[in-house]
Amino acid sequence: MRRTHCSDLSTATPGEPVRLQGWVHRRRELAALTFLVVRDRTGLAQVVLRPGDLPDGAACPPEETPVEVVGTATANPQAPGGVEVTSPTVTALSEPADTPPVELWRPTLSASLPTLLDHAATTWRHPLQRAKWELAAASLHGFRSVLDADGFTEVHSPKLVESATESGANVFEVDYFGRPAYLAQSPQFYKQVLVGVFERVYEVGPVFRAEPHDTVRHLAEYVSLDVELGFVRDHREVVACLREVVAGMVAAVAERASSAVERLGVRLPVVPDELPTLHFRDALRLVGAPDDEPDLAPAHERALGEWAMAEHGSDLVVVEGYPTASRAFYSHPDPDDPHWSRSFDLIFRGVELVSGAQRLHRYEDYVRVLAERGYDYAPFASYVESFRRGIPPHGGFAIGLERWVGRLVEAANIREVTLFPRDLHRLAP
Amino acid sequence: MRRTHCSDLSTATPGEPVRLQGWVHRRRELAALTFLVVRDRTGLAQVVLRPGDLPDGAACPPEETPVEVVGTATANPQAPGGVEVTSPTVTALSEPADTPPVELWRPTLSASLPTLLDHAATTWRHPLQRAKWELAAASLHGFRSVLDADGFTEVHSPKLVESATESGANVFEVDYFGRPAYLAQSPQFYKQVLVGVFERVYEVGPVFRAEPHDTVRHLAEYVSLDVELGFVRDHREVVACLREVVAGMVAAVAERASSAVERLGVRLPVVPDELPTLHFRDALRLVGAPDDEPDLAPAHERALGEWAMAEHGSDLVVVEGYPTASRAFYSHPDPDDPHWSRSFDLIFRGVELVSGAQRLHRYEDYVRVLAERGYDYAPFASYVESFRRGIPPHGGFAIGLERWVGRLVEAANIREVTLFPRDLHRLAP
Repeated sequence: MRRTHCSDLSTATPGEPVRLQGWVHRRRELAALTFLVVRDRTGLAQVVLRPGDLPDGAACPPEETPVEVVGTATANPQAPGGVEVTSPTVTALSEPADTPPVELWRPTLSASLPTLLDHAATTWRHPLQRAKWELAAASLHGFRSVLDADGFTEVHSPKLVESATESGANVFEVDYFGRPAYLAQSPQFYKQVLVGVFERVYEVGPVFRAEPHDTVRHLAEYVSLDVELGFVRDHREVVACLREVVAGMVAAVAERASSAVERLGVRLPVVPDELPTLHFRDALRLVGAPDDEPDLAPAHERALGEWAMAEHGSDLVVVEGYPTASRAFYSHPDPDDPHWSRSFDLIFRGVELVSGAQRLHRYEDYVRVLAERGYDYAPFASYVESFRRGIPPHGGFAIGLERWVGRLVEAANIREVTLFPRDLHRLAP
Repeated sequence: MRRTHCSDLSTATPGEPVRLQGWVHRRRELAALTFLVVRDRTGLAQVVLRPGDLPDGAACPPEETPVEVVGTATANPQAPGGVEVTSPTVTALSEPADTPPVELWRPTLSASLPTLLDHAATTWRHPLQRAKWELAAASLHGFRSVLDADGFTEVHSPKLVESATESGANVFEVDYFGRPAYLAQSPQFYKQVLVGVFERVYEVGPVFRAEPHDTVRHLAEYVSLDVELGFVRDHREVVACLREVVAGMVAAVAERASSAVERLGVRLPVVPDELPTLHFRDALRLVGAPDDEPDLAPAHERALGEWAMAEHGSDLVVVEGYPTASRAFYSHPDPDDPHWSRSFDLIFRGVELVSGAQRLHRYEDYVRVLAERGYDYAPFASYVESFRRGIPPHGGFAIGLERWVGRLVEAANIREVTLFPRDLHRLAP
């Protein structure tokens, strides 16, 4: 007999035999009846046991035990979906499960964050918790769909690198067959040189940040959605690509994770055809910050998010033209006024979600900027030398997956949407 | 003016103005003419410069310089695709490129492997080299398409872990905020516990092996395509899933990378509806190995590959039922004879490509097997404890991306198909 998924039970013909597989989500033993709610990856289904449905002396398996239920689909307006399973044979597919550390059958998970994280392997089973990752998985699908359709090539760059990629500080050191190696903080340099091969590339993979941050929005390891494209005129073409990508992610969430959106009550962002865009200089004025601030503080980003919603009805706002000196050395300056750069951030509901820029593409510019910043040339030599081989004008951006989902569900802490977070204090489970 | 891709030039109307962007692939200066072959991500196009097409005193940019060419599409039966660009304006988009370390315009790359790898950022530009990664990218698309359509959820598990996942040996140690951590050798434990959440999961990501191998088929870091599915009857259901995945990868290569297949002359494997399958015991006999061999040697795998081709016309053969003692501790024994396991390997053209198995799913079985093998319980405690929470019978497999592509193109060394390989001796570029 084919398996019926819980979410499809409502379409079964009453009287039809059905076979469910899943977990005992809830067991309620009344005087004359036992109600069993079975949970599978698609939803919940109600099973009714009457005396005699279990062999003499047999107990109904406890919550979280994997079971198979074979019985009869029976109409019952009170059951979820209007159909329940009666006259069942319930078979445990493993030993009876231990009592979970939190009651997964309750409508909401009321556990504290440390409990949630310590028992992540179990707490992710809660339908509301699982829904958060369903948003992540759908978003990844949307990200790739847009780029696949637009001539991008998926790449995978090494995570073990010879020298620190971004700034030299805050990298994890690895014992690599007796010599030091480092965990890549980003695929930045690889994606840039791969523009020389494929023109347009993307990568979804882990990045590692040994920054001793202890905040609600930083992780020591996260999933980065990296994009880089060649033959661009300026950073505005990169922003246009980002707009398509974000729109595709939202569309994929709406289409592929509609049940998760509903369960969580997610308010999906509207992605306008043109993202509201402010120059950094104007953004500072708007939030009342001094003209010589080198960067936006979290409070500024929040204020800009409120402004975008109030003025443009948009959850998204682009800030472009950050001071060159406060961005990564490979950012392309604005040729009209090199004090400012052709860089941008995308702020989503008041939090920086994406950083991007047009990059330098001339060898001489790299040599000059490293000298100006007082960086050692040696660790960057192989990277910088690759720009002598002919790299066209290009740019790109990186989206943090967990931040994206965090803002989608408006989580207070990024750890709530991370499967198994890593931070200053946490390396398990 | 819209950009015309090189591969589309053949469809341009003669006389029509066109705009190309790409690299100078080849510059041939004759007495009266200069031929410029432009390369972009789609192919090559011929541009003809006559005296006067360049400003007085201007030189044609050297090979590998990124350029934009605006000119007129002109029929010429001798040009690739039958159309070339005449009366062009050629604009360099960066400084003139240095002479590449190998001549990329030659039909084949004759460089030695060390040269190829030392200059990977450049040598991947060669159309034949790039084609290899195009096979990889298409394969990833096929892998995900099959699983997305079959109810699997994409997951991303942490690469920084508290204890060695597989066997304790041969892991890279990381300095994690002053305490030791390790790089995950596989997402094995995470994908198993996530079966408890999503039932069916897959992950594409890097795995790290500190084995001091120095062979043509091992890397210290590679891309692993991991799959795990719950509610299976035995490992045969896992093999059936693997068959669908491989068929989907082949179909995606045929469809999305047809030009790469053609350039490389790749012979795509036929994936039979039922993969030829041998029990390990019979495989040993077939290759003339002693009955008590614990595993198949590379020579045995080659012989089995030849057998599958001769007997079944198949590039693929499954060996199942490896001795329990020679497989990972979490492999499920055959209940009828626990000497043998419900494990399998998929051999592709004589090389092990995939390992998989039904796994243990009962807590007591884990406790027992760890004791039998004399493993410390402590490093596995959090993993093993998770099986007290109700995990259904499940199994899975892992495909090495680089091995897959290596066998597709019948490369002598896996490094030839790896973007930036990492091994005992190599940590750059």
